[in-house]
Amino acid sequence: MKIFDEMESEVQSYARSFPVVFNKAKDCYLYTDSGERYIDFLSGAGSLNYGHNNDNIKQALVDYIAEDGITHGLDMHSDAKRNFLEVFRDKILAPRDMEYVVQFTGPTGTNAVEAALKIARKITGRSNIISFTNGFHGCSLGAVAVTGNQHHRGGANVSLCDVDRMPFCGYYGRDVDTVKMMDKLLSDPSSGIDKPAAMILEAVQGEGGLNVATNEWLQAVDKLCKKHGILLILDDIQAGCGRTGTFFSFEKAGIKPDVITLSKSLSAYGLPFAVVLIKPELDQWEPGEHNGTFRGNNHAFVTAAAAIEHYWSDNKLELAVQEKAELVTKRFKKIIDAHGGIALGLKGRGLMQGIDCRTGELAGKVCAQAFKNGLVIETSGNHSQIVKCFCPLTIATEALSEGLDKLEQSFAEVFADEKLKKAS
Amino acid sequence: MKIFDEMESEVQSYARSFPVVFNKAKDCYLYTDSGERYIDFLSGAGSLNYGHNNDNIKQALVDYIAEDGITHGLDMHSDAKRNFLEVFRDKILAPRDMEYVVQFTGPTGTNAVEAALKIARKITGRSNIISFTNGFHGCSLGAVAVTGNQHHRGGANVSLCDVDRMPFCGYYGRDVDTVKMMDKLLSDPSSGIDKPAAMILEAVQGEGGLNVATNEWLQAVDKLCKKHGILLILDDIQAGCGRTGTFFSFEKAGIKPDVITLSKSLSAYGLPFAVVLIKPELDQWEPGEHNGTFRGNNHAFVTAAAAIEHYWSDNKLELAVQEKAELVTKRFKKIIDAHGGIALGLKGRGLMQGIDCRTGELAGKVCAQAFKNGLVIETSGNHSQIVKCFCPLTIATEALSEGLDKLEQSFAEVFADEKLKKAS
Amino acid sequence: MKIFDEMESEVQSYARSFPVVFNKAKDCYLYTDSGERYIDFLSGAGSLNYGHNNDNIKQALVDYIAEDGITHGLDMHSDAKRNFLEVFRDKILAPRDMEYVVQFTGPTGTNAVEAALKIARKITGRSNIISFTNGFHGCSLGAVAVTGNQHHRGGANVSLCDVDRMPFCGYYGRDVDTVKMMDKLLSDPSSGIDKPAAMILEAVQGEGGLNVATNEWLQAVDKLCKKHGILLILDDIQAGCGRTGTFFSFEKAGIKPDVITLSKSLSAYGLPFAVVLIKPELDQWEPGEHNGTFRGNNHAFVTAAAAIEHYWSDNKLELAVQEKAELVTKRFKKIIDAHGGIALGLKGRGLMQGIDCRTGELAGKVCAQAFKNGLVIETSGNHSQIVKCFCPLTIATEALSEGLDKLEQSFAEVFADEKLKKAS
Amino acid sequence: MKIFDEMESEVQSYARSFPVVFNKAKDCYLYTDSGERYIDFLSGAGSLNYGHNNDNIKQALVDYIAEDGITHGLDMHSDAKRNFLEVFRDKILAPRDMEYVVQFTGPTGTNAVEAALKIARKITGRSNIISFTNGFHGCSLGAVAVTGNQHHRGGANVSLCDVDRMPFCGYYGRDVDTVKMMDKLLSDPSSGIDKPAAMILEAVQGEGGLNVATNEWLQAVDKLCKKHGILLILDDIQAGCGRTGTFFSFEKAGIKPDVITLSKSLSAYGLPFAVVLIKPELDQWEPGEHNGTFRGNNHAFVTAAAAIEHYWSDNKLELAVQEKAELVTKRFKKIIDAHGGIALGLKGRGLMQGIDCRTGELAGKVCAQAFKNGLVIETSGNHSQIVKCFCPLTIATEALSEGLDKLEQSFAEVFADEKLKKAS
Repeated sequence: MKIFDEMESEVQSYARSFPVVFNKAKDCYLYTDSGERYIDFLSGAGSLNYGHNNDNIKQALVDYIAEDGITHGLDMHSDAKRNFLEVFRDKILAPRDMEYVVQFTGPTGTNAVEAALKIARKITGRSNIISFTNGFHGCSLGAVAVTGNQHHRGGANVSLCDVDRMPFCGYYGRDVDTVKMMDKLLSDPSSGIDKPAAMILEAVQGEGGLNVATNEWLQAVDKLCKKHGILLILDDIQAGCGRTGTFFSFEKAGIKPDVITLSKSLSAYGLPFAVVLIKPELDQWEPGEHNGTFRGNNHAFVTAAAAIEHYWSDNKLELAVQEKAELVTKRFKKIIDAHGGIALGLKGRGLMQGIDCRTGELAGKVCAQAFKNGLVIETSGNHSQIVKCFCPLTIATEALSEGLDKLEQSFAEVFADEKLKKAS
Repeated sequence: MKIFDEMESEVQSYARSFPVVFNKAKDCYLYTDSGERYIDFLSGAGSLNYGHNNDNIKQALVDYIAEDGITHGLDMHSDAKRNFLEVFRDKILAPRDMEYVVQFTGPTGTNAVEAALKIARKITGRSNIISFTNGFHGCSLGAVAVTGNQHHRGGANVSLCDVDRMPFCGYYGRDVDTVKMMDKLLSDPSSGIDKPAAMILEAVQGEGGLNVATNEWLQAVDKLCKKHGILLILDDIQAGCGRTGTFFSFEKAGIKPDVITLSKSLSAYGLPFAVVLIKPELDQWEPGEHNGTFRGNNHAFVTAAAAIEHYWSDNKLELAVQEKAELVTKRFKKIIDAHGGIALGLKGRGLMQGIDCRTGELAGKVCAQAFKNGLVIETSGNHSQIVKCFCPLTIATEALSEGLDKLEQSFAEVFADEKLKKAS
Repeated sequence: MKIFDEMESEVQSYARSFPVVFNKAKDCYLYTDSGERYIDFLSGAGSLNYGHNNDNIKQALVDYIAEDGITHGLDMHSDAKRNFLEVFRDKILAPRDMEYVVQFTGPTGTNAVEAALKIARKITGRSNIISFTNGFHGCSLGAVAVTGNQHHRGGANVSLCDVDRMPFCGYYGRDVDTVKMMDKLLSDPSSGIDKPAAMILEAVQGEGGLNVATNEWLQAVDKLCKKHGILLILDDIQAGCGRTGTFFSFEKAGIKPDVITLSKSLSAYGLPFAVVLIKPELDQWEPGEHNGTFRGNNHAFVTAAAAIEHYWSDNKLELAVQEKAELVTKRFKKIIDAHGGIALGLKGRGLMQGIDCRTGELAGKVCAQAFKNGLVIETSGNHSQIVKCFCPLTIATEALSEGLDKLEQSFAEVFADEKLKKAS
Repeated sequence: MKIFDEMESEVQSYARSFPVVFNKAKDCYLYTDSGERYIDFLSGAGSLNYGHNNDNIKQALVDYIAEDGITHGLDMHSDAKRNFLEVFRDKILAPRDMEYVVQFTGPTGTNAVEAALKIARKITGRSNIISFTNGFHGCSLGAVAVTGNQHHRGGANVSLCDVDRMPFCGYYGRDVDTVKMMDKLLSDPSSGIDKPAAMILEAVQGEGGLNVATNEWLQAVDKLCKKHGILLILDDIQAGCGRTGTFFSFEKAGIKPDVITLSKSLSAYGLPFAVVLIKPELDQWEPGEHNGTFRGNNHAFVTAAAAIEHYWSDNKLELAVQEKAELVTKRFKKIIDAHGGIALGLKGRGLMQGIDCRTGELAGKVCAQAFKNGLVIETSGNHSQIVKCFCPLTIATEALSEGLDKLEQSFAEVFADEKLKKAS
């Protein structure tokens, strides 16, 4: 591992939590070069919803490469892109009665967010954007300005402008109506909140701590935006692609955001890929006004289309996720109960649930212990206090149970150790 | 092609110049789904220096996928990354006496530029950046602020701050010493130019019109930066990876920039990949301070390592590029001479040369005609007035000649047509 | 009046409400060139707390001019400045146990606010400032950024950066603890609210609609600032100099803000004058770092000192203001009751009280009618819905009563007229 | 003087150069409270062009105060304002064939500059402003952003946005055509210089070091602005009101700027006063869109009108200034020659001339020595290297000669002392 110390920047992060070298991965398993096997409850921070190197997708990619299909296509038309567009329209958009055009951006979430902010500002002629407490949208300058996390904001080392921050659903407690607050501010010509081009939000905040917006809140925000002529950007980069049980995280709220960003698990194989979905009447881009060299990553078109064909032609995956989510909830409640309901709390929805350990220190210990027990799992939240279960959606129930066993054991070991320390 | 009209955003750009659907590509050739073959003098805007689906690289990728190597690894250690780091150190950095650490950013050029700007601002505690006329660095908010192009700048729809613009080498004519001008501004406590964290520049401006910085100018800028305690960021995203004849575009100037950005052809196979090279003493990142989900695109690690092994273990590629560059120069001069030395001009260096058509209209006609003749070629420059030859570095001489024949013919046809129009 | 139409900019505002030409003024009376007399309940928007051309102050100014005292002194030492500093220290600061140094800025409120923001940012090394809904702090770029009013904000025609907006006391109703909200945001490293250099606020918001911060709220904000290492800037430009009954508007809360801005009635004679009071340990200015040609307006030093000597050597003025404030309250309640307690509401504190007419249209009609009845009075509030009584503090009780009679009559006339309209 | 140490902020600047307490002033003389007399070659940094307490103006002010004329009038119509507007139109604008409306801003230069920038941005819908090297325009946030001086820029402690900096006339030497450079940048859609709303400049840079724009340069800039649809803001705050020999500093160039700012000597008595002159068709302000409590400083209206009546009804003052300027030039050349033409240089125009001492250290010594000799004089320039003669325009020739004698003597003493030091 000396080469990593010598040659890789100090910016490394996950590598510090998991100080091994991985050389192989399949489905929910990660393997090191020394032959150890780990169950993966991190899933590429939500980029591997279909597991590693999923066999239902892999062959399509291998065939495509073998046949010398277009790999890099800028924004030129290709067979692979055509196929992706058709499948995406027919299996994802049409059944949900959603009409959107697709913008292919540079293949990372932050590129998609940058494009979404630009088009919203262009359409409205306004510069201000409303974003939310604990929201996470990326690290390039436009995206980090709407991100809440101070660690990432501070990294910019310049002032982050043209953004006003509002409280997310439940931020001040479930009794406080934050949409009403926003309405007051937006209706008051002297509130100091400049009329925004758009609001940008996640339906479930991943990095922010698995905070769940209720359907009612999402509907109220949607209505508020319409009332004030504000666009609604739904950043579904982490919570989308089935993670919450439906393809889009906001489906159950019945809203149709003006702009949607997708990335992470969209390629379904861990390949870089990102799109912005825009309501057709808002697609007011000039040719090339926002671009990016890798906006035509055809390998990702191939794997994304294969995954959608396989997993989203019927509702089997949705049902399976629901079932597994229930299992996770049950097992998490058990863990929480075991250690006192005050010490721990349940967070999240679908297969993005977590256990709130109240402190980052405790959560960190649990994850470290889990890794010793053969489980790769990470924290999220403003104090890194949430142990979050991001298993592949496609994980076998046995593997899921095994992973949850390991987690339960890790909690038990850490709590036992804590008690010992207090006693001494 | 109806699906593209219906489903893809108006932001499409290259697709408008080349209104066909490609389904296959090999080396310097692009094939459409109706079986037509084109010679590719665009090469993914500099991302396909080794041609399409290069057989010297392809097998490594296929094998890696077959063996279920890690595909998506966040910033975790992997065999593939280790191998890339070793090869990059041994074949690229060490022989050039360059000592740098590698930061893996989100796998697009603009992500790398964002990271480079951040670290420069962090190290120096200053917010201002100096960038140059006609420079192009990307489309996310931080990168577009240092970009010159108004079309892209305007797309941001917010003020672009914390940047001062300086004249690139030769901007006011070869006789005007723009480094001396900068020195005066930077030495004057009342010039209004706030002391910058860094200067960011390309040694050859790709999008800006194949404007070449002389070695003397690069050396003078390097010295100026050192004199004033300013960091030098060399954006080698388009001109790097051998495009100018050496791996880095600035090698012949003998400078060692503080920070270097690489992307585009770094993966060597058209796969999204980007790194920032940072002098070890400047690697002051906090863990995770700048991140991105796809910063561990292991497929790209595999292809990049294979390409470096194959092409940069000796100087054969460098010599071949030099030879082909001379051929391009010779043929371009012939074209220029044929149509009057005033009407056209030669631009660029290495295999990023072009013909200055003085107007975007003329250049556009030539490219359109070339496409009819079976050649994919594009323009660059502030008025899109440069027809630029970006053939793969690995193109066979016969194919290069054939492409140049097509280009010559296209110029002739357009000029004949123009004469006809004027006559009538 | 033709000359005003021809030669003065359309930016005129009060001149539109009072389309006459004034040529003389004394105490609470304004006189036109055609001999009409008006009672002044506007008092130069709070700049004439001691009435027009107050005889207790006037002679000092006349004498000073006659003796060729320094008029314009940049920031050089002068007798007049010395005298002002001594009187201000002995009669204002010392008796209130306040230790501050005095910065003389350009002689307008907005200049003082600019200086206050600068020093706060300098001391803390942070750029963000927290300001409040409906706050008003001036129209130069730094000050308007902390101002809430959209009409003025929009006038900047650029993005207003480095400011986060928080709800003022009672903004969401008296039951909502806005300080607790702020504490949550400031304690949350992922809230997206960058740690501010300072909070800037008025204890009673003048332009914003006579919104009163409770003593408890001010104390809680003060405590919050100390907890988080944030400076507290109290903008007492409008509410200070006795307007609320004490010299400083925040005295009764018992807080000692880090920085205080004063202007408007500070000169006591309507002469331009502004200062920033800074706790001695925070006075970290470099010489000349913030300056302004007219920061030594010695005429104002003379009148300010005379006024302080005369009015603030004992508590007579304070008691008188209290008495008059009670009269205003009583009379306002009578007006409100006469027209239905729902239609109108009472706002403000001391001699900055007003009647909330719910709509700007109604309030505008009342003021227009009052002008017809010989009373100069204006509106404030986010919808210009508050008819505000800003009589001189020194107004004779008879004149105050006469003015209130005129106002009562104006309300009655407008309401009668409204009823008539509805009936028809 | 203890009170100043104890009670006045460290931001004091001139007070450090002249550590005495002034108590009286008349014409070109300043008197201390201990009876010393100084000749004033500083004139309130250009605010006292008519000397201190000028008897031709004083009586009008005394009478106005005695009669209880309006002192503070917000923007309401008053006799005094009417008179000022008429006199200003008839004696200043009309004879010069200038058609402008007058905006009364807060009574400081920086307020006028803020208003000028706002209206330019509003009219054009663009945010960028071009300002010039060594330009000085004020210290509030908008004004300091267009100012060059780093000491003042740094005081803002935030990023200064929406401004691009260009070289002033002669900045790169008299042979370099800086207007041509600007034309290239503004004509190049990829230069990175966003099309500006306006250029703001001084015809003679006062604080920047008495740098003189040639008439040809001003004409070329004017033409450039018209070519590109950019507004021209001429900041005549320091160089205007007769300082260069004509009322406006740019008269001889024959240009008619779109917007002109005036302040400093406009009141003619050292009273705070500032206006923005706007071409009638550009006066697109909304009522009250930019305001300020002291925009109706009627005392200043009175003194300004009296001064214009007295001094600008004929060309006697102009001729006198010209004569005195020639004397200053002659005497300065003598001083320069006496100490070697290389060591010193002549700067400026009219009665804003100076001697370039090459270093701030030397210039500072000369001014300190001059103060010992009974002369108040200050430096300007990016390194405070210019000893600048800013005597009143109305100074008697004998007093001017006496002051110049003192200056000559001071140079001689300092140079003698320097030689001695070198010798030892």
